[in-house]
Amino acid sequence: MQTLEATLHHEIPLTRALGVTVEDYDGQVLSLKAPLEPNINHKDTAFAGSLNALVTLSGWGLVWLILKEAGIAAKIVIQDSQVNYTLPVAGDFVACCRKPDPAQLERFQAMLVKKGRARLELGAEIRVGSRAAVTFQGRYVAHLVR
Amino acid sequence: MQTLEATLHHEIPLTRALGVTVEDYDGQVLSLKAPLEPNINHKDTAFAGSLNALVTLSGWGLVWLILKEAGIAAKIVIQDSQVNYTLPVAGDFVACCRKPDPAQLERFQAMLVKKGRARLELGAEIRVGSRAAVTFQGRYVAHLVR
Repeated sequence: MQTLEATLHHEIPLTRALGVTVEDYDGQVLSLKAPLEPNINHKDTAFAGSLNALVTLSGWGLVWLILKEAGIAAKIVIQDSQVNYTLPVAGDFVACCRKPDPAQLERFQAMLVKKGRARLELGAEIRVGSRAAVTFQGRYVAHLVR
Repeated sequence: MQTLEATLHHEIPLTRALGVTVEDYDGQVLSLKAPLEPNINHKDTAFAGSLNALVTLSGWGLVWLILKEAGIAAKIVIQDSQVNYTLPVAGDFVACCRKPDPAQLERFQAMLVKKGRARLELGAEIRVGSRAAVTFQGRYVAHLVR
């Protein structure tokens, strides 16, 4: 978790301005957190761009963890994403991204090793209490570093 | 243009960290600019979250200008968006958002005045040379301030 946080802060310096920290990773779900204050907008809620950045980073971080666990060195980029902003977020916020099922992960890793490039689709969300405030679907592409 | 820039910096303080400026507005297309440096990632290209923030803001800014021109006081939020990251962006970047056709604009304004709330769908993009690097579609909701 500390390694991922240091990697985020080092590789994407803006994550420091956003105040991104790694909240938790239990092997299945990665949670990234950001404080409201640097991300606030005029309605005293979080700026959509900051919410989007955190869900995007939660997917990127999860792919990074998956590849690290598999011992595969690869570069990760996002290809496309779809985001719904359902509720305003009026406090610090946490983006959670869950690993896809094992079969999907196996296909992703096998394709990456075989073809040097593979795609993984991930869902993430930010909740306010028990309700989804931001729902995200993103496709990431990993490129093998040979 | 200066009023919009001041509004962005005031209402969404993170836009200052992103280095967002209003590049141009000719009455049809709004262009927002951001420098690479604060938005750079480990591949010496712009962080996807920053690219997303700039296209999202270009749509928000265009709705703000449309309402200002119409003399309508309303709050604007984004409802959902879809983004494709097609090419890496290795320099300062500009997001352009074009006004929809007049009939669509008229419906949006009439609905807003009548119902107190209306949606507008906008497309925006970031180009690298002559090619689209980021393509964005977003739906914004305006709420009349009575």
